[in-house]
Amino acid sequence: MAISSAQGSCIASLGHYLPSTVLTTEEATAKLGVDAEWVVARCGIQQRRLADKDEYVVDMATAAAREALTKMATYPGRADTPSHVDTVIVATSTAESGMPSVAAQVAGRLGLRHPAAFDVNAACAGFCYALAAADAIIRAGSGRGVLVIGADKSSSWLDWEDRDTAILFGDGAGAAVVVPHDQRAIGPVLWGSIGEQADLIRIDPTERVIRQDGRSVYRWATSLGETIREMCRRSDVAPEDLAAFVPHQANLRIINTLAKHLDDVTTATDVVDVGNTIAATVPIALSRMVEREEVEDGDSVLLFGFGAGLAYAGQIVTLQTAPAATAHEAAMATAERPG
Amino acid sequence: MAISSAQGSCIASLGHYLPSTVLTTEEATAKLGVDAEWVVARCGIQQRRLADKDEYVVDMATAAAREALTKMATYPGRADTPSHVDTVIVATSTAESGMPSVAAQVAGRLGLRHPAAFDVNAACAGFCYALAAADAIIRAGSGRGVLVIGADKSSSWLDWEDRDTAILFGDGAGAAVVVPHDQRAIGPVLWGSIGEQADLIRIDPTERVIRQDGRSVYRWATSLGETIREMCRRSDVAPEDLAAFVPHQANLRIINTLAKHLDDVTTATDVVDVGNTIAATVPIALSRMVEREEVEDGDSVLLFGFGAGLAYAGQIVTLQTAPAATAHEAAMATAERPG
Repeated sequence: MAISSAQGSCIASLGHYLPSTVLTTEEATAKLGVDAEWVVARCGIQQRRLADKDEYVVDMATAAAREALTKMATYPGRADTPSHVDTVIVATSTAESGMPSVAAQVAGRLGLRHPAAFDVNAACAGFCYALAAADAIIRAGSGRGVLVIGADKSSSWLDWEDRDTAILFGDGAGAAVVVPHDQRAIGPVLWGSIGEQADLIRIDPTERVIRQDGRSVYRWATSLGETIREMCRRSDVAPEDLAAFVPHQANLRIINTLAKHLDDVTTATDVVDVGNTIAATVPIALSRMVEREEVEDGDSVLLFGFGAGLAYAGQIVTLQTAPAATAHEAAMATAERPG
Repeated sequence: MAISSAQGSCIASLGHYLPSTVLTTEEATAKLGVDAEWVVARCGIQQRRLADKDEYVVDMATAAAREALTKMATYPGRADTPSHVDTVIVATSTAESGMPSVAAQVAGRLGLRHPAAFDVNAACAGFCYALAAADAIIRAGSGRGVLVIGADKSSSWLDWEDRDTAILFGDGAGAAVVVPHDQRAIGPVLWGSIGEQADLIRIDPTERVIRQDGRSVYRWATSLGETIREMCRRSDVAPEDLAAFVPHQANLRIINTLAKHLDDVTTATDVVDVGNTIAATVPIALSRMVEREEVEDGDSVLLFGFGAGLAYAGQIVTLQTAPAATAHEAAMATAERPG
């Protein structure tokens, strides 16, 4: 039977996972023969987390998703959350293998009831792309409970002797549970790509490591202020009404430059202690912001992913991460799995 | 500015690309030391196409997309089709690299105007997943012209000495242009996965070749008759009203078993001359069916992808591949790119 479409969707719960191994910039630069202070001044990264050799993207994705589902199950009347998940989307660019999808494996490990499962690859914009897809799927009536995960293990794809990339990345995963909502608590997406510059950030198929033209990428990323303002216009939110800004965490200088377009709004700077976790930066940063109680229910937060492709995507979300039981009851009362 | 949502969406044009190199089953089996007739009896595959060593997934995807766009541009009033494409989705499991996405590269090569661009991985169900995402994106108002491509180069991921897999796969790409429509000419998707069996078809990260437990996969695939009937119910289409059935092309015996659930409907059997092209089988088969005039405008066709994950997805589409100019004018009149 068909699922009725919803007016809108919302992020109802968040979780994240960071591997326990910490690699400080001091340790990383010692091997590279560059000055740690210079690296921190240049990109702001003081440390990053590294997954173990046998800890895969699917492990991190599952851990982050489990936290998001566990948290949600503690909300009044939501103990059965996992049984309502009918779709799993994993944004990743670093899966160890193309088959099967990470999403199907996550679904299996969490014991979900045979959800639709697929991976999305839009590099560092991946989570915002997947979130837009989840919102469209719910509003179009093709799903009622979507687990959206960003997970990347960049450490497997680094040339540890390349000082232009080795010190920039880290491993991790973040997850969101997206459900129907009576308002568009996930706002209209603004997304695009600059395919003619697709090779500025790339994993060469032969070399199998990440390379980037840092200077050109920096120039592009810091020029995205107008894109941010357009996201606000598209959602009819004045920049001064935003509670927080969660841009992709690639470089503290890029983050600070972009934040200038938003009148001193609270801005995520997780890059400082976790580095660039590719598709995982935005959900990790948002999850930690909620955990630290820097944002709360009803707050509008601008999410913005950008990176290889050059692909970008962003949207304003109004958090519903600790809602009253009734709102959720209403939103999920008719939830059914499609499969 | 926001894009208005549409009642439904449709496939407005199709294209496909097959590499020129043909490898017959006779040639392939000679190297493996198995009997060609036995292979043909077992899976129905008489030949497959192989991409050149330096012909990548992006090359095939671009060629297929170019054909779909070129065809559409010949329709009355549609010369400007490429300028209306605001989203590119490439379903693939065999991209040579995780960065950048194949979709962003295709967009760049086709000179599209900075569309949203992302890859989808749901293995052999990938095209049907991407088509469902495209339909949701259009109906939710997040896009107005979506290029949906399935492209895979399995030949790079085969153990040519493994007689259980080497003779099953081939390379190729298929593409569809999806636009708004006043009816749901892309019907409700039925999708799901069996994550606890995710390792039945896999690319081992270390080995980097496709392995499968053929017997278990065959048992699962041939058990999907009820899923097919449910797709018909979900779209309110009686099986006898289908003009054609385009299942994933993995094995002629699976195809014939599934087709028995649909009362002698015309069924795609491209596996015979192109093998299993993973996410490309469904759009290649549909494109060739239209080309051979086996189906025509207004016909209902059941698409059904299934494979590693174990992920599956299917939907009934009502072809609009040579519509009157007016219908398209109406559908695309308000098209604008979001980026």
